[in-house]
Amino acid sequence: MEIKRAVITAAGRHQSTLPLQTLVDRHGQARTALAILLEEIAQAGISEVAVVVPPGAQSAFTAAAGSDGRRLTFVEQTEPLGYGHAVWCARSFTSNQPFLLLVGDHLYVSGQPQSCAQQLVEIAAAENCSVSAVQPTHESKLPYYGAVGGRRVAGRRELYEITDVLEKPTPTEAEQHLIVPGLRAGHYLCFFGMHVLAPAVMDLLDALVQKGQPPVQLSAALAQLPGRERYLAAELAGRRYDIGVKYGLLTAQLALAMEGQDREEVLALVVELLAQRNRRSGAT
Amino acid sequence: MEIKRAVITAAGRHQSTLPLQTLVDRHGQARTALAILLEEIAQAGISEVAVVVPPGAQSAFTAAAGSDGRRLTFVEQTEPLGYGHAVWCARSFTSNQPFLLLVGDHLYVSGQPQSCAQQLVEIAAAENCSVSAVQPTHESKLPYYGAVGGRRVAGRRELYEITDVLEKPTPTEAEQHLIVPGLRAGHYLCFFGMHVLAPAVMDLLDALVQKGQPPVQLSAALAQLPGRERYLAAELAGRRYDIGVKYGLLTAQLALAMEGQDREEVLALVVELLAQRNRRSGAT
Repeated sequence: MEIKRAVITAAGRHQSTLPLQTLVDRHGQARTALAILLEEIAQAGISEVAVVVPPGAQSAFTAAAGSDGRRLTFVEQTEPLGYGHAVWCARSFTSNQPFLLLVGDHLYVSGQPQSCAQQLVEIAAAENCSVSAVQPTHESKLPYYGAVGGRRVAGRRELYEITDVLEKPTPTEAEQHLIVPGLRAGHYLCFFGMHVLAPAVMDLLDALVQKGQPPVQLSAALAQLPGRERYLAAELAGRRYDIGVKYGLLTAQLALAMEGQDREEVLALVVELLAQRNRRSGAT
Repeated sequence: MEIKRAVITAAGRHQSTLPLQTLVDRHGQARTALAILLEEIAQAGISEVAVVVPPGAQSAFTAAAGSDGRRLTFVEQTEPLGYGHAVWCARSFTSNQPFLLLVGDHLYVSGQPQSCAQQLVEIAAAENCSVSAVQPTHESKLPYYGAVGGRRVAGRRELYEITDVLEKPTPTEAEQHLIVPGLRAGHYLCFFGMHVLAPAVMDLLDALVQKGQPPVQLSAALAQLPGRERYLAAELAGRRYDIGVKYGLLTAQLALAMEGQDREEVLALVVELLAQRNRRSGAT
């Protein structure tokens, strides 16, 4: 299948200013988080991008997107009815086609020349089905993520056939439904914040929205997918950074710098700051 | 003299989005750079604050200021005619009173319980004259700053009587006019980005603006001050961080964290990131 469109969700109450934050990217350029995400997507060969924003945010996002701003499609989520509802708001844009979905409050740092989005889109195109990027995650962090259960695809180290999806599972639920043979003990496959989704997911979301019981979770729609069609999870060569948590921007910035051309400069800067502090502590 | 008003300039072309960037402050709270500056000012006992912004930026700044947003006075600089011109735009607000002046693209990290602004305001109130905060700076950085020449005030380690002010001096100019006895060799007193200014400065700026030769530099007005009235420089116990330069936000965030309650947490985070990278480097 061919993936030509991408959707970024940035409508959450605390998320809407995050894509406007400025970081220095791997190439040493100061850019907004949104511009960095758009480059991630462009590297996957996708040029049609919709951003789901809260009402009134469009002009700030257009400015933050820089030279790509004019090419974006904006979709307003007028009420905060859940993450799945935000995705559903973009259904006219995705127009019964498969699409790449990214959350606007994460940055992705690939450990390879290919961006994380590019890796995921290539897998989905080759496997011809929905694929959610996942990261093995310690059970102590289950309260923060959607997680999947399943089994490894034979002969493919990084691919899993998904059988179950649960949003923020309890440890008991995880142990009963989400154990994946071959993972480290106490670890589960949690969502990475990046998916390629087949059109069926929009239909499942539509049914959930029609039911009228917000919040509408994306995980609730994805949980219905394994019974209907093939649905894979993929471990990508890279890491996700949630820039919405405390020190998330700092962590993402350091991670970008450590993988980029300014590695030595930033290491020197960190060491100098720590030394300054120690000099003063020593003096008092 | 009593300092009741403060002016923040944030109208520069590349400066206007900087006060909207989010950092975690010393108390572990995620806040915009503008909110952190406003707290800096509040600690100095000042509640009347004007922000000089470019046209159209007021609503974003009001939102970024958080709970203090409604109390701010906004002044638009409609044309980019220089830093001195931006200050001059706030002349109705300062209304022939002394005022604290901060640049919106810097953050200040005090090495004491008193904020840098509080230290400066206390000195100006006691000395009853204009006082510019300064930082001994290596001559290699003279192209980035205004700098002053003068001599130490007898018996006061941190205070200087200013005789000369030059904007971005050449090394030759600095050597001829700005050598301050007692500083380390090759170091000059450069502006810290924070001043308490007497009403006379607004008059001097007004004369420069009337001349109609932009850009109108604040340094040009300050250079005329020593001939007219007492004008001091003060070294504060703290450091300034220009968040507009490359990795400026990262540096400011690390500096805030190292002086704050989350010091251990952030050190652990930095070490973990560096270790991650080394593990992968070791494996390839």
